[in-house]
Amino acid sequence: MTVRERIGKLQELMKVEDIQVYIVPTADYHQSEYVGEHFKARKFLTGFTGSAGIAVVLQDQAYVWTDGRYFIQAAQELDGSGIIQQKSGEPGVPTIEEFLKKELPEHGLIGFDGRTVGVAKGQEYEKIAADKGGKVRYDLDLIDDIWERRPPLSEKPAFLLNLKYAGETVGKKLERVRETMKEQGADALVITSLDDIGWLLNIRGNDVEYFPLLLSYAVIEKDGVELYADERKFSEEILTHFKENDVTVYPYEAIYERMKSFTREQTVMLDPEQMNYALYSNISEDVPKVQTENPIVLMKSVKNPVEAENIKKAHIKDGIAHTKFMYWLKNNIGKEKITELSASEKLEEFRGMQEDFLGPSFGPICAYKEHAACAHYSSTPETNVELKTEGLFLTDTGGHYYEGSTDITRTVALGEITEEERKHFTTVVCSMLHLAYARFLQGCTGMTLDYAAREPFWRQGLNYNHGTGHGVGYLGNIHEPPVNFHWKQVPGKMKYPALEVNMVITDEPGIYIEGSHGIRIENELTVAEGEKNEYGQFLHFDILTFVPIDLDAIDPGLMTEQEKNMLNDYHQKVYEKIAPHLTEEERRWLQEYTREI
Amino acid sequence: MTVRERIGKLQELMKVEDIQVYIVPTADYHQSEYVGEHFKARKFLTGFTGSAGIAVVLQDQAYVWTDGRYFIQAAQELDGSGIIQQKSGEPGVPTIEEFLKKELPEHGLIGFDGRTVGVAKGQEYEKIAADKGGKVRYDLDLIDDIWERRPPLSEKPAFLLNLKYAGETVGKKLERVRETMKEQGADALVITSLDDIGWLLNIRGNDVEYFPLLLSYAVIEKDGVELYADERKFSEEILTHFKENDVTVYPYEAIYERMKSFTREQTVMLDPEQMNYALYSNISEDVPKVQTENPIVLMKSVKNPVEAENIKKAHIKDGIAHTKFMYWLKNNIGKEKITELSASEKLEEFRGMQEDFLGPSFGPICAYKEHAACAHYSSTPETNVELKTEGLFLTDTGGHYYEGSTDITRTVALGEITEEERKHFTTVVCSMLHLAYARFLQGCTGMTLDYAAREPFWRQGLNYNHGTGHGVGYLGNIHEPPVNFHWKQVPGKMKYPALEVNMVITDEPGIYIEGSHGIRIENELTVAEGEKNEYGQFLHFDILTFVPIDLDAIDPGLMTEQEKNMLNDYHQKVYEKIAPHLTEEERRWLQEYTREI
Repeated sequence: MTVRERIGKLQELMKVEDIQVYIVPTADYHQSEYVGEHFKARKFLTGFTGSAGIAVVLQDQAYVWTDGRYFIQAAQELDGSGIIQQKSGEPGVPTIEEFLKKELPEHGLIGFDGRTVGVAKGQEYEKIAADKGGKVRYDLDLIDDIWERRPPLSEKPAFLLNLKYAGETVGKKLERVRETMKEQGADALVITSLDDIGWLLNIRGNDVEYFPLLLSYAVIEKDGVELYADERKFSEEILTHFKENDVTVYPYEAIYERMKSFTREQTVMLDPEQMNYALYSNISEDVPKVQTENPIVLMKSVKNPVEAENIKKAHIKDGIAHTKFMYWLKNNIGKEKITELSASEKLEEFRGMQEDFLGPSFGPICAYKEHAACAHYSSTPETNVELKTEGLFLTDTGGHYYEGSTDITRTVALGEITEEERKHFTTVVCSMLHLAYARFLQGCTGMTLDYAAREPFWRQGLNYNHGTGHGVGYLGNIHEPPVNFHWKQVPGKMKYPALEVNMVITDEPGIYIEGSHGIRIENELTVAEGEKNEYGQFLHFDILTFVPIDLDAIDPGLMTEQEKNMLNDYHQKVYEKIAPHLTEEERRWLQEYTREI
Repeated sequence: MTVRERIGKLQELMKVEDIQVYIVPTADYHQSEYVGEHFKARKFLTGFTGSAGIAVVLQDQAYVWTDGRYFIQAAQELDGSGIIQQKSGEPGVPTIEEFLKKELPEHGLIGFDGRTVGVAKGQEYEKIAADKGGKVRYDLDLIDDIWERRPPLSEKPAFLLNLKYAGETVGKKLERVRETMKEQGADALVITSLDDIGWLLNIRGNDVEYFPLLLSYAVIEKDGVELYADERKFSEEILTHFKENDVTVYPYEAIYERMKSFTREQTVMLDPEQMNYALYSNISEDVPKVQTENPIVLMKSVKNPVEAENIKKAHIKDGIAHTKFMYWLKNNIGKEKITELSASEKLEEFRGMQEDFLGPSFGPICAYKEHAACAHYSSTPETNVELKTEGLFLTDTGGHYYEGSTDITRTVALGEITEEERKHFTTVVCSMLHLAYARFLQGCTGMTLDYAAREPFWRQGLNYNHGTGHGVGYLGNIHEPPVNFHWKQVPGKMKYPALEVNMVITDEPGIYIEGSHGIRIENELTVAEGEKNEYGQFLHFDILTFVPIDLDAIDPGLMTEQEKNMLNDYHQKVYEKIAPHLTEEERRWLQEYTREI
């Protein structure tokens, strides 16, 4: 079936249901960052394969909204389909909401699968329809009707995370969560975020690409937990574990009817920012609600002592693998054929040699020269290039181990680099170090600390258009809220919780010069306790990542004494931690690449 | 009448009205920072003269809540009065709310003058009473009944601020305000903050100590403005000015009845954070309300080009006066008797020699040695000490000129100082400079930039327990919201608007060592436009204050090259701006004190 035929079939169904506009986003039912094949409805419908983009179909014309990353790719992929591409943010291009306001006829119906749309977005659509005397239909997955060989929902088995990895029993975790429910006067708490359910129940799954998570919903009550998931995924051991913790398993889709069963006698706690519109809308308006941030988000972001110790171990493994890769790359470039993709595979190979490696923790970014100027470049067979003995090569990769997940970026010189590249590289290094070596008082947020990383850039009239860092999950999402480093206030969007001991957060400034080069250096940090005195409790960071920063690309003449001291201190630690695990040859190389400057 | 008698009389009245608890705060009807004599009801009732503190009177016992600044003074002043002092924040001391919850009997009445209590606080009292089946009485000023020779409300004349000082006509300002009202769907906007009314109507008054403001309320409607104020304060010229702008004057107290006249047909916009409880409670619950930040607050904080130019002139005048004072002090210490208070008078004398000086812009802080360790020390005849040829002397003072208001702090060495003092002084200087010379992107807030000032402190395990800076009014409040520098997030309390060109803000880090010394250095900054490039619009600060920073107290060995460059750059500007206005002798002195280090 061609894309034209798919659109045509959808439009027929729309006419049957008398729906004027049908919206197909790129999302699963859990607002996840990566989605499984079953959920790639927009890709199926339009042929556009990018990770972000929303299709909006009228009865006589289809559109796809794309963002800047995908303007070129979408144009190619949509060519000949009859679908009109809308380039978000370009002059004269309406937002989807503006478009709906204009195109929806009076008393018109907007249709979408409410499970794939967030509460706020669904309410916006609802308002646009209501303003025209119309309404929304959110209980229809029309794509499912035309998608003949739709990949089924993942059926991969779940696994238990032993206490030696999880560090806290489900009982203790539930106790803490119920304490918060009590404070808020809630009888039930609905959790729809996969990583939070995994954390709470000490289980993981294999249902989401890169993230070891289980498709599920949970309702926590005072005396039990309802888990909505495919029971076939659970071993006897897991079912016993559930029984011990009063966890009862219900079918995955049964959550939708369950929402309808809440009565006005129960107060339901939920986080509208995490929930999908269908779940939310299924709860009767009569039901008293506590709409607040899911309390697990903050609990989970503070790693417990066992997790914290494990994470350090995971990073040693990761540092060994990455250092070996760097040694291999530096010594083989120009001698054998290496491409972006083959280098990426090699790096994963080194990670695979480490014990308890489960797989990559996100889609690897391996970008040579100007490819790295796109912060989220992902090499494909079409874009893949051979690495030569010149210029800069950026890798942003990570691994899941039972001891935790890693996220690390290094940019290395493969040979000669320009003066500008050297200057930019040095700026990025100094920025990363300023933040990593910051000292601050308890209560301080990533919004304030971001200045430490920005200052070396802003001083020169430079910047990077992304946050300096994000929280990192423990066998969960690699971008784990709520903690982050970002100076920019996005009203109602980002939260800036105070940094707490044992939070884990990345430190990854970068610079991106279109058509030329991209540099990013990323270490993970964990918050550690310092001196307590009359001014309060001081905190600082322990660096978790131990991989050399390429001295070949640095201009020490652009660094202050203090900056050189920080780099030397870091490199000394890298050597101490990693050298014992290397071959003699690698060790000598590491010694040179962690030398004092 | 003794304090005991006053309390006794109040308690009699309470019994008559069947009020179980009567609360007397320290406030006027406008939540002003300084209050006129008429409003010092708590001082009258209790004899405690501090600027902050709340009296809570039961039918058989009276209490005063005081904060750390006043523990000692209040103890002395309350001695023998029978009033119990409650030291806020000390272990075991309840908050007023906790106390009320405990002491208010079932069905009890809490009384207070609702004009002197903010909306949020009043609602808290209301809830505490309601929880006991009781209520609040907010329409009673019982103190007025017992205060025989109560100073009347100020009757001082208002004055018009000419366009050459105000920079924008009332018509234009009203247009902008009405634009916001329209966006918010409001028919009327109630303004109760004195500085906002002064800004809007280009008038000033003399009703509040230190601040040239007029006691008034305003209701802005689509086609006119109701001004509630004492008409006798207005000259013919002002009344004509009002007529031209459709401003109608009503009696000051008439606002309370006016609030009752809003109907459900009108949408009223108001800022509950600025409004008093009586006004708010007088508006019927039926009336649709837009409760949002008063839009004038942000408008006023961005100075218009005329104000911006004027402010620069005011600071040159202030810089001349302060530099002359510093020269005089350095050359006369040890030769004549100088005390904290006489130095303070001398500094005002130098300001008085400048054209268009209207008076001090706030209560001066002149603090020698350990007195300066209290950040808000105010010298009195009882605490006044003689300055000697040793140690550090801090002055935090400012002036109102028609061209604007100033706020400047300098700490100077009067002779030998300790190594620790020198180290601390140098830290404060570096901190002030780091912030003043910061460069940042548009959208950045004072919460992020505060790191620039804190870093030199935090690095050493030091801190200061106040914001690094506050907005400054133009012939208004010296602490003008909403802009500020502060890393600490106070939920719902502080706002962090992005810095905008022509905002004026202070930069005043400090260090306070109890029993030893206090150091603060304060310059005012204004936000200026820098380069605009692919990363956005860069901004930086122009320093407004030009007074030397005492090189006698600095240890250049503790400064980086970059820090020395900033100080030298600043001192060069001080010399260029101020030297032309000095005597030859003063000029030579300034040359030495602004020399390159």
